[in-house]
Amino acid sequence: MSKNKDVVVLTGAGLIGVAISRRVGAGKHLVVADLSMENAERVAKDLYNAGFETTAATVDISSRKSIQALIKEAQSFGEITGVINGAGVSPSQAPIEAVLKVDLYGTAVLLEEFGQVIAEGGSAVTISSQSGHRLGSLSEEESELLATTPTEELLNLEMVQAKNVKDTLHAYQLSKRCNVLRVMSEATKWGKRGARINSISPGIIITPLANDELNGPRGEGYRRMIDGSPVGRAGTADEVANVAELLMSDRGSFISGSDFLMDAGVTASYWYGDLSPKMFK
Amino acid sequence: MSKNKDVVVLTGAGLIGVAISRRVGAGKHLVVADLSMENAERVAKDLYNAGFETTAATVDISSRKSIQALIKEAQSFGEITGVINGAGVSPSQAPIEAVLKVDLYGTAVLLEEFGQVIAEGGSAVTISSQSGHRLGSLSEEESELLATTPTEELLNLEMVQAKNVKDTLHAYQLSKRCNVLRVMSEATKWGKRGARINSISPGIIITPLANDELNGPRGEGYRRMIDGSPVGRAGTADEVANVAELLMSDRGSFISGSDFLMDAGVTASYWYGDLSPKMFK
Amino acid sequence: MSKNKDVVVLTGAGLIGVAISRRVGAGKHLVVADLSMENAERVAKDLYNAGFETTAATVDISSRKSIQALIKEAQSFGEITGVINGAGVSPSQAPIEAVLKVDLYGTAVLLEEFGQVIAEGGSAVTISSQSGHRLGSLSEEESELLATTPTEELLNLEMVQAKNVKDTLHAYQLSKRCNVLRVMSEATKWGKRGARINSISPGIIITPLANDELNGPRGEGYRRMIDGSPVGRAGTADEVANVAELLMSDRGSFISGSDFLMDAGVTASYWYGDLSPKMFK
Amino acid sequence: MSKNKDVVVLTGAGLIGVAISRRVGAGKHLVVADLSMENAERVAKDLYNAGFETTAATVDISSRKSIQALIKEAQSFGEITGVINGAGVSPSQAPIEAVLKVDLYGTAVLLEEFGQVIAEGGSAVTISSQSGHRLGSLSEEESELLATTPTEELLNLEMVQAKNVKDTLHAYQLSKRCNVLRVMSEATKWGKRGARINSISPGIIITPLANDELNGPRGEGYRRMIDGSPVGRAGTADEVANVAELLMSDRGSFISGSDFLMDAGVTASYWYGDLSPKMFK
Repeated sequence: MSKNKDVVVLTGAGLIGVAISRRVGAGKHLVVADLSMENAERVAKDLYNAGFETTAATVDISSRKSIQALIKEAQSFGEITGVINGAGVSPSQAPIEAVLKVDLYGTAVLLEEFGQVIAEGGSAVTISSQSGHRLGSLSEEESELLATTPTEELLNLEMVQAKNVKDTLHAYQLSKRCNVLRVMSEATKWGKRGARINSISPGIIITPLANDELNGPRGEGYRRMIDGSPVGRAGTADEVANVAELLMSDRGSFISGSDFLMDAGVTASYWYGDLSPKMFK
Repeated sequence: MSKNKDVVVLTGAGLIGVAISRRVGAGKHLVVADLSMENAERVAKDLYNAGFETTAATVDISSRKSIQALIKEAQSFGEITGVINGAGVSPSQAPIEAVLKVDLYGTAVLLEEFGQVIAEGGSAVTISSQSGHRLGSLSEEESELLATTPTEELLNLEMVQAKNVKDTLHAYQLSKRCNVLRVMSEATKWGKRGARINSISPGIIITPLANDELNGPRGEGYRRMIDGSPVGRAGTADEVANVAELLMSDRGSFISGSDFLMDAGVTASYWYGDLSPKMFK
Repeated sequence: MSKNKDVVVLTGAGLIGVAISRRVGAGKHLVVADLSMENAERVAKDLYNAGFETTAATVDISSRKSIQALIKEAQSFGEITGVINGAGVSPSQAPIEAVLKVDLYGTAVLLEEFGQVIAEGGSAVTISSQSGHRLGSLSEEESELLATTPTEELLNLEMVQAKNVKDTLHAYQLSKRCNVLRVMSEATKWGKRGARINSISPGIIITPLANDELNGPRGEGYRRMIDGSPVGRAGTADEVANVAELLMSDRGSFISGSDFLMDAGVTASYWYGDLSPKMFK
Repeated sequence: MSKNKDVVVLTGAGLIGVAISRRVGAGKHLVVADLSMENAERVAKDLYNAGFETTAATVDISSRKSIQALIKEAQSFGEITGVINGAGVSPSQAPIEAVLKVDLYGTAVLLEEFGQVIAEGGSAVTISSQSGHRLGSLSEEESELLATTPTEELLNLEMVQAKNVKDTLHAYQLSKRCNVLRVMSEATKWGKRGARINSISPGIIITPLANDELNGPRGEGYRRMIDGSPVGRAGTADEVANVAELLMSDRGSFISGSDFLMDAGVTASYWYGDLSPKMFK
């Protein structure tokens, strides 16, 4: 058997990324990278104690240098055959600039950099969000700008300048729409290496933080949204992993450049059902 | 055990619908409906000889009465817990009016009618097409019209009148985009019954007919499109079934109102890669 | 939608049971039962924070009354449609009597009791062990005794009396073989309710405890066993869940009364390869 | 991308083998081999028209030379990463000698020969039968003889000599038990190449021939067996493919040397339920 293992890189050590890693990481070397080394080490240890071979690392996806350093570290264990990107900041945690720097620009850099080293037959999934599906129509020109503007010029686009971005939620929606569009343009490049890339746009997925919010002062609004959705419940990270595993395995080998919305029908209901836009303020 | 079986209805007895039926039909009663009774019977017999309990039926999805009759027949075997819609006409087979009547209006009626009888916990998948993803941007108003106009008024919409539809391909793209939007608005209704509905937009999937085309006079263009796609090959009905099975099973129980594009990255490449729009004429 | 949820009961809140629960528990009510209420509560809370609706409970599977009380509690949430049994004691933790009382008798009682309440369409998986596959040949008579002796008389069988049981490992192997045989005889009863039951016999699956052992004084022996196995590595609870999920879902609806050995080929190598019996002392 | 494709070899072009091929063959080169070139060509054409890249070939698995020639042909397309063995003769079609020559000896040769060329990471599934599970207990010595006797001496074993084999059913049961044991001993060798091998023992799976029998003069007996089984129905080749796909994919990468019985609980019921041995005469 070959000395070097297949390497899977997880960026952003949250519940969804971990659930996906558990599906695709067995028998491989799993690099668990997070902005916080403490998080990365805790998750890497949990996964080690669940049978995975892991290394903890730090990464700031808004920094190309940091991503390049992570790639170099990952390559020391073998060829990178899988990438799971769950890194990002939420619109309630960060100011507009940070959302755009991390979620819009950072994701674009990450896809670009891993696209230059991904192994033949490799595959990536990046976690976008249902939020991007509530942004409304973009013109073909706007879509093309988000999809194809050279990464280092993305933050100079007129449409993401302060005056054109209403609030952090708007910045987040723009970023998540951009993720999906970058996945499209990157897919054409990853394809030339025999690799694939897709995104998943999850709805409300329960985490400890989400449960705190559901039980907190703004909880009633969220619960109304969940109860009013077609499926009528929140989702689990394990359900996101159901889709991610298909996309990253041979079963999904015909799929590239796609986004998979899984949100209990919230988006459908936002546009054409009971969940009126007012509920999402 | 209960006398009545779970019933799965397949409309359109083509390769994709059959592949999906094989995944979700075991132990259930499978009603195989097609415009041609001969087709329906041939497929029903094949599936019977592969271990499935089947009944052949006819349906013209452009007729509400025909769909209602099919539903009545299906219900005679038990509750309808699954619907697989693969019926439709292709833009190279039919004039503009027929494409709109079957693919746009017919699909809308079918989703509406089955949405009034689907069992709690039931699930449907309708086969759309990558073509809908090449239509270009619609305004929010246009999308809403396609999504929510009462079904019997759909063919009166200004945007589908003869003067506004360039050719059969355009009619097909409009229809397939409409399918995805109807799935969204229907999902909000199916949800109230505890049921789910999603669509899949496949790319080039090989069938005997497709192989004839690939080896025929226009084959070179198709082959260039396939070879130039990010994945670099055509797909199989079985791969579409990988996604459909997830959507129709418990593994997809958080997913409703979504469309899943699986096209080897052709759409991505059409918009932002090597597959220029000229190749799709 | 119906008020009552489908209920899945997990007995034994270890890593394998939890991994399976994450696959099959979404949208259902999950009763997490363990001998230790502290364990049950910790796991129930973790799963709650991962999006599952959970209740913690205690159960001593060696007590029929305790199992009956658990069933009653579970039924208060709805019909029991799934059972995951991961409860048991290990031969290195407990004396012979306890191994037989819990692993042999307790499992038999549990399968019997749940078999009297399982819903139509329901399914169970019980976790056995590769150890049972190293016991060696039993005669048809011995197998039949383990399979069909009335549960309350199982511990009176000659073959499980102190003089006939060498050590705790032997007691464990007998128990695990018995589990597989009880699954066979129970499957015929569960079938009459339209329900299914199967077992999985995992090999070395990594847990925090297992890692401690691998890094401890006896670690070298274990590592030699893992390295010498055909697959060459230990397994993960998530991989056991791959098989359990298939067995418990519609995809496994033709399967009942079976045992699925997944052990990296250790059993094969023990009998016919490099892993000589001496390594298992 | 590499010029050479991954090659999957199917031996025995029956319904089960074809169903498995459809799951694991997309994007690979599929060599469809059968004793009858006519069968091989028909199936290869069907699969070609379902999107698979195929080559038809002949093979007589009871001939080492024939297997070696098949391997050579398969290798001309690339590395062999998958093997699906569905070849064999049924006890109602052939005399004792032929059953032993093909099902017992032939399968053993096939596993041995492919085990010398299988790619690292490769995987095989061989189709055994529930019949082997009704043979009754073998001693450890007998099992070891079937598992490890050099292939060319297998047919000289005392236990397979004419005087010790009651009828063709007995020959078939011995052969199928032998398959499972050869899989164990081969797994230890395949493991040294980083490859895995497992078997599946299906119960009554519907094929056109099976339907003829069910509707024929001996049909009542079969139907009683099916109706009396715990699951209460016959199975489909697609359900066997559910298990085979798991075993051959990354999801089953911890599994080697195992046999997976999937038979509606018939074996369980034969030994410990309503299906008395008399029904199987």
